[in-house]
Amino acid sequence: MNFRLLLQYDGTDFHGWQMQDGLRTVQGELTRVLTLLEGREVTVHGSGRTDSGVHAEGQVATVHLEREISPSKLRNAINGNLKPDLRVLFVDIVTDDFHARYSAVSKTYCYRVVHGQVMSPFWVRYAHQESRALDFASMKHCARFLIGEHDWTAFSAAQSNAESRVRTVTQLEIQHGWDSRGCCDLVEFTVSANGFLRYMVRSIVGTLLAVGRGEIDEAAIKRALDTSDRELAGPTAPAPGLTLMSVQYEE
Amino acid sequence: MNFRLLLQYDGTDFHGWQMQDGLRTVQGELTRVLTLLEGREVTVHGSGRTDSGVHAEGQVATVHLEREISPSKLRNAINGNLKPDLRVLFVDIVTDDFHARYSAVSKTYCYRVVHGQVMSPFWVRYAHQESRALDFASMKHCARFLIGEHDWTAFSAAQSNAESRVRTVTQLEIQHGWDSRGCCDLVEFTVSANGFLRYMVRSIVGTLLAVGRGEIDEAAIKRALDTSDRELAGPTAPAPGLTLMSVQYEE
Repeated sequence: MNFRLLLQYDGTDFHGWQMQDGLRTVQGELTRVLTLLEGREVTVHGSGRTDSGVHAEGQVATVHLEREISPSKLRNAINGNLKPDLRVLFVDIVTDDFHARYSAVSKTYCYRVVHGQVMSPFWVRYAHQESRALDFASMKHCARFLIGEHDWTAFSAAQSNAESRVRTVTQLEIQHGWDSRGCCDLVEFTVSANGFLRYMVRSIVGTLLAVGRGEIDEAAIKRALDTSDRELAGPTAPAPGLTLMSVQYEE
Repeated sequence: MNFRLLLQYDGTDFHGWQMQDGLRTVQGELTRVLTLLEGREVTVHGSGRTDSGVHAEGQVATVHLEREISPSKLRNAINGNLKPDLRVLFVDIVTDDFHARYSAVSKTYCYRVVHGQVMSPFWVRYAHQESRALDFASMKHCARFLIGEHDWTAFSAAQSNAESRVRTVTQLEIQHGWDSRGCCDLVEFTVSANGFLRYMVRSIVGTLLAVGRGEIDEAAIKRALDTSDRELAGPTAPAPGLTLMSVQYEE
């Protein structure tokens, strides 16, 4: 049977999603536990990789198991063998052709920034800090030019070897307001697309923060999109601010 | 000058507020840093102790310093010498007779419970988990009997040696709803009083959770208040769910 897992993890103590020898990774932990339960080597497919330090509130994975087990028992069996920073929230059975990665039609990430002089202990693992003044009107204005289908070469890792660097961003929202838990001003960048290149969200956010500080303008963003010149975009924002929120599939 | 500090800490890696030889405590950390800045031994007064593992979103402390320094520079100087799990959010100068503990008129705590089968990695340090069904109507009904002036002996640590165990609870609210960050049902108990005995909030919450599970009824709660019999109240809920939210002072 083909099982779909809805996952949450605090990425702080993981070397990202992808299995790597000798390093603690999310895929590695799930593979270890599921191989143990199944009694033979299994392959766990994720909707996509998350980098070291990146979190997930709604990552999706699939795994084929021969063992007959109910979804809720599988969830409990997996969780019972994991440390508390990785949890299976929900399991269901999907058709055999469903694949966490290839069946995904879009994904949504959130990038969080504590905007102020002091970094709250409650956000230090999950947000980046920006202590300088930000012009939110300019940031929102420039964000609009990034929505749509573009070649994202200027907003991705230099070593990104994807065949096509064209992706469609369908949502890019900037919200900010008082976070009572952190007693701070929290800025949230929500980005949805039909696919993401490596460091794409973090480059978009780093660029928009530079816009907010007055270091990059609208013209530079348009040129970066047109020319694919990485130097025109802003710096890559740090990993801990980034969280994979959800993966969308066709019904 | 007499400085007032507004503090946040993630209590997970502290042995509580109070200074103890050889253990990392909040008062100990602040005393170390402020003694260094002042160049002589100083005494840091908190609004009250928090136990090992208990958090603070709004703890208050006072310290007298001879050194002349602006509030914002003092804040930055302290924060620069602390690990990220303890932060001074704000500093102001108060009159010499202001004292973090003796000037406080009331305090507010929040106790958080993740209600469900799976504990979110994002709440594991800050909330207790209850996987059994809870009757919220009964819990809210019984909470009403706890509001007001009572002898709280039945709802406190056996070794509590306070002279009087009479305190007035002015607020005891139970709210629950979907927490999007944890993808879970989060229950929040908010308790305000003119003072708290040791383990008082955690005993109140442990008792109300037992009410929710159908193990303790209204009559037992009333008898516990009347007779001060600790056996009639529920268990003490674990420390990590508890957060000191704010301390109220007279204008």
